[in-house]
Amino acid sequence: MEVDFAQWYTDVVTKADLIDYSSVRGSMIIRPYGYALWENIKNELDDRIKETGHENVYMPLFIPESLLQKEKDHIEGFAPEVAWVTHGGEEELAERWCVRPTSEVLFCEHYKNIIHSYRDLPKLYNQWANVVRWEKTTRPFLRTLEFLWQEGHTCHATDEEAHEETVRMLDVYADVCENVLAIPVVKGQKTDKEKFAGAKYTYTIESLMHDGKALQSGTSHHLGDGFAKAFGIQFTDQEGKLQYVQQTSWGFTTRIIGAMIMVHGDDRGLVIPPKAAPTQLMIVPIAQHKEGVLDYAYGLKETLARIARVDIDASDKKPGWKFNEYEMKGVPLRLEVGPKDMEKQQVVLVRRDTGEKIFVPTDHLEAKITEILDDIQRQLFEKAKELREEKTYVALNHGELKETFAQKTGFVKAMWCGDRSCEDQIKEETGATSRCMPFNQEAVSTECVCCGKEAEKLVYWAKAY
Amino acid sequence: MEVDFAQWYTDVVTKADLIDYSSVRGSMIIRPYGYALWENIKNELDDRIKETGHENVYMPLFIPESLLQKEKDHIEGFAPEVAWVTHGGEEELAERWCVRPTSEVLFCEHYKNIIHSYRDLPKLYNQWANVVRWEKTTRPFLRTLEFLWQEGHTCHATDEEAHEETVRMLDVYADVCENVLAIPVVKGQKTDKEKFAGAKYTYTIESLMHDGKALQSGTSHHLGDGFAKAFGIQFTDQEGKLQYVQQTSWGFTTRIIGAMIMVHGDDRGLVIPPKAAPTQLMIVPIAQHKEGVLDYAYGLKETLARIARVDIDASDKKPGWKFNEYEMKGVPLRLEVGPKDMEKQQVVLVRRDTGEKIFVPTDHLEAKITEILDDIQRQLFEKAKELREEKTYVALNHGELKETFAQKTGFVKAMWCGDRSCEDQIKEETGATSRCMPFNQEAVSTECVCCGKEAEKLVYWAKAY
Repeated sequence: MEVDFAQWYTDVVTKADLIDYSSVRGSMIIRPYGYALWENIKNELDDRIKETGHENVYMPLFIPESLLQKEKDHIEGFAPEVAWVTHGGEEELAERWCVRPTSEVLFCEHYKNIIHSYRDLPKLYNQWANVVRWEKTTRPFLRTLEFLWQEGHTCHATDEEAHEETVRMLDVYADVCENVLAIPVVKGQKTDKEKFAGAKYTYTIESLMHDGKALQSGTSHHLGDGFAKAFGIQFTDQEGKLQYVQQTSWGFTTRIIGAMIMVHGDDRGLVIPPKAAPTQLMIVPIAQHKEGVLDYAYGLKETLARIARVDIDASDKKPGWKFNEYEMKGVPLRLEVGPKDMEKQQVVLVRRDTGEKIFVPTDHLEAKITEILDDIQRQLFEKAKELREEKTYVALNHGELKETFAQKTGFVKAMWCGDRSCEDQIKEETGATSRCMPFNQEAVSTECVCCGKEAEKLVYWAKAY
Repeated sequence: MEVDFAQWYTDVVTKADLIDYSSVRGSMIIRPYGYALWENIKNELDDRIKETGHENVYMPLFIPESLLQKEKDHIEGFAPEVAWVTHGGEEELAERWCVRPTSEVLFCEHYKNIIHSYRDLPKLYNQWANVVRWEKTTRPFLRTLEFLWQEGHTCHATDEEAHEETVRMLDVYADVCENVLAIPVVKGQKTDKEKFAGAKYTYTIESLMHDGKALQSGTSHHLGDGFAKAFGIQFTDQEGKLQYVQQTSWGFTTRIIGAMIMVHGDDRGLVIPPKAAPTQLMIVPIAQHKEGVLDYAYGLKETLARIARVDIDASDKKPGWKFNEYEMKGVPLRLEVGPKDMEKQQVVLVRRDTGEKIFVPTDHLEAKITEILDDIQRQLFEKAKELREEKTYVALNHGELKETFAQKTGFVKAMWCGDRSCEDQIKEETGATSRCMPFNQEAVSTECVCCGKEAEKLVYWAKAY
């Protein structure tokens, strides 16, 4: 892992049975273990999306070229990376269709049909879907030609309401990252260079991987009325005046699984936080051929299923093989039970994160497991936060910035004057991009880290996935 | 509805806010009410798929042309109706990719990678996905260019096990149709002409719509070892011998929503069976400006949410408007409560299916609502079954068959010799196709209804969607 992080990552995603490759370049097969993980994340996020008043819908997979072209910035941003359908069956299409890279224009066309009055607002829609971006170089979860995501699309009467929605959904993403996936995030705003094609502004959550590279983990865009004007989405307000709607969109993708792997994983493989884990507790019977062991283990499984996602491996493989297997797969907690434990009315619990062995009397088992799973969840978050803090640096001037990126990989906090040319220069010199202007601003200095001019904005810079 | 069933259908799907059209020909926007309905059906089916030991996975959206061509019958069946991607970004592809019409070949390629020994069997995978078939004429839910579905793909050691799986999953589909959607089905086998491209045989559930046309509601295919041989999916059996796996696949789609509409709907709109209904009980406050009414209605909503999916319409629209709206939307049960009811400590329940008004004392409300919802579920199924029986005819000879189809629309039970030419002739003369050879065979005669030769197979014939 410390020697070749990229190779470690590729090994883990395949050896832990998360994905497989196919003859479809850049796409991945999400295997049962990987998909169960995605289902858990999806359910947690879907619950929060519904609790905040949103409704799920489904839009077409295809977008006719003329529709995609309606918003100028949007088409410029996405045209170079879409897949084009030119034939249906034997027949050539009069107009080519792209496979959606994102669905703003489809939602806009629909919103124009169904929004007429202030009574129709807000419209708070979400879609779970697959999208395609024609990436040249790809890596499982992190950058794939096709990926799974949800995309929220909302319409509001005022700029202020759209702003509140943009913040609300960024907070929902941060909640899922921090409290489900145990990934600490920095919330902030993207620079104009890095914002979404067609947005007024983009909010983002940025996380830091074990190797010190950053990963954009979710974005929430205030679209203003740019799309509304391009598509003519208007409503009659309470005074009878015709107004354009204010829109937002926000997305969260399977890429977060890549983040989870790279934040928590170690040399033995995956480490999955309990709240996201397909299996939270794996029971491994010891000397299972001995009388009563298997019955006892299955009995435990049934009892413990009330408090956790429990599985048992009663195959004829050796316990040592099983230990390795479920460590590789990042199962948070292992329960070992054999004839001696049965005699002593105890079991052995082994934590994936620390390797700690805990002997627990069976009459305290349920409470203890709940307590340990909670503790693992908390410790993983704390550990990731500590690592991020260790790998967060400050640069006060151009020399320091270049030196830091030459020697370290991590977040570098530095002031920025707001000029695109400085952003471009930093990228060129260091390979780092502006990750965000954090909501929590500090004035680490008063001068732009690049040009030395007066600067008021703190930016997090980093090399990124 | 009786005057122009097709127009009635189109009106209902849009007026009940299930779908909207877009500029994407043949595709539909599934609106929040339609999607909530699909989520309910999906959850019911997904639970059953998992209970029977299957795991969810996700395969790529695209299939390279060379991969699709590996199984000869399969490519012949699907090539005329796939969408072809020829360009990614600015660049033309060396090999064109189709958008998956179904994913057999992707599963097969993966299975070849992961199956080696009898210990790897069975493999019981399922995928929830969108698929595309380039249909010329389309109708919402019934036949769309893109649709949502699940597709199961399994591998087994023996023909017998694959057969059992094929039956098991057909039974799961029948269970969802009959017990969730209240749609009675006929189970049977497709003729060779109508079977899935590449299958050994196809089992189907067929249902009958209000207008007497049939609708294929779910299919389960025994694929034999045809795909296994084309893709080289082999395993070492317990005796150390190399064998080809036996495969199945089975699918269930958003088209079932069309069936639900056409089986239960009436002149006032949709009728949704309680188990599938996004809202099972809609509360409409009467004289809601009067003191205490709204508080009381919201209190009921909170209490009743424990036993049903409850919603309330407290908008300033008139009660009459609301009654029509939720009748159109097929909400199974309406609860009216106003100042007089509050005084009498009662509410009024109105059944969508029968229009019956029931006055219920508030202290019996929960039990009564549960009882009525169960009764609606049961009655809808019974009514649909009666209609199907009314519209099921028997034809003993060629004359009777032609006469029946000239005068009636429904299932016609008639014997068939097994010759493709008779099937073709019947289709040409009557417009009806063989829906299935029912598992429940009866010998209504001993002669083929077309050619008069000796015949042992009973077939259900019908015009179909």
